[in-house]
Amino acid sequence: MYLEEYTVGMEREFGSKTVSREEVIRFAKEFDPQPFHIDEAAAKDTMFGGLIASGWHTCAMLMRMLCDEFLIDDEGSLGSGGVDEIRWKMPVRPGDTLRVRSCVTEVRGSESKPDRGIVRSDYSVINQDDQVVMTTKSMGFFLKRPV
Amino acid sequence: MYLEEYTVGMEREFGSKTVSREEVIRFAKEFDPQPFHIDEAAAKDTMFGGLIASGWHTCAMLMRMLCDEFLIDDEGSLGSGGVDEIRWKMPVRPGDTLRVRSCVTEVRGSESKPDRGIVRSDYSVINQDDQVVMTTKSMGFFLKRPV
Repeated sequence: MYLEEYTVGMEREFGSKTVSREEVIRFAKEFDPQPFHIDEAAAKDTMFGGLIASGWHTCAMLMRMLCDEFLIDDEGSLGSGGVDEIRWKMPVRPGDTLRVRSCVTEVRGSESKPDRGIVRSDYSVINQDDQVVMTTKSMGFFLKRPV
Repeated sequence: MYLEEYTVGMEREFGSKTVSREEVIRFAKEFDPQPFHIDEAAAKDTMFGGLIASGWHTCAMLMRMLCDEFLIDDEGSLGSGGVDEIRWKMPVRPGDTLRVRSCVTEVRGSESKPDRGIVRSDYSVINQDDQVVMTTKSMGFFLKRPV
C-alpha cells in the first residue's frame, strides 16, 4: 500500500495468534527470564497468579501479525523509525488468542523527501475475551504511488 | 533495589551481548520476517545493504541485559506498565556487540499506594563502535524500602 491509500480514521481488524505455554517460556528464557514468565510454580505466588507472557513477546507477536497482514511484500512500506508509546494493560496468558485492531491517526507527506510520507497508527492487541491487553502508537514510512 | 536507591541523574553502563547471524534470522523468522531481517542476499539490495536485526529483537536483547543487571532477584522491582518512546536509530548487524547506558530521569512516590513509586529512565543501546543504535524511555514500579 502506498501513502495515498491511508486516510485518518481508517480502521482494520486482523490476525489470530494463539500463544502456547511453550512459546511463552521459550521467549522469556532467552529474553526476559523473570520468574512469572518462565516458572509456573513461582508465577502462582506473584501478583499475576500464574504464568504470563513477557510484554516484549506480545510486541513481537503484534509485529508478526502486522507482517502477515500487510508489511510483507508491501512495495510501499519503508519500515519504521520507532514507536511513541507502549502500554501493557492486561496479562497475556498461555492459550490466549490475540488479534489486532488498528486505526490511522495521521497521514503526512515528508517535507524533505517528496516521494514518501509518514503514517501514524494506534494499535490495540485484543484477546479472545475482547480485552485490550496492549496498546501502542506507531509510525511507519511509506512511499507515494509512483507516477 | 528499592525506590529510595534511585536518584535523578543516576547513570549506569552495563551488559555485553554479541548478536549472531543465526540469532538475527531465527528471531525474525518467528516474529518479523521482512526480507532484510531473514535473507542475506535480498538484504543486500535494500537501503540497509545487508542483514539487520529486527528492532523488536534489539528491544528483547535490551530487556535481557536489564534482567541480568538488576531485574532478576530484585525484591524491589514490581514490573513495568509500558514504555514511552522507542527510536531505532542505526541498524544492528550480525556480529555487533551491544551494551546499555541508563539514566534515571524521574523518581516519584505513588499517590494511591504509599508502599511504592515510579522510576523513569532513559536507556540507550550502544554498539562496539560507540554508536547509539536504539533509545527508549521506560518506566518501572518499585517498592519503597520496608520499615
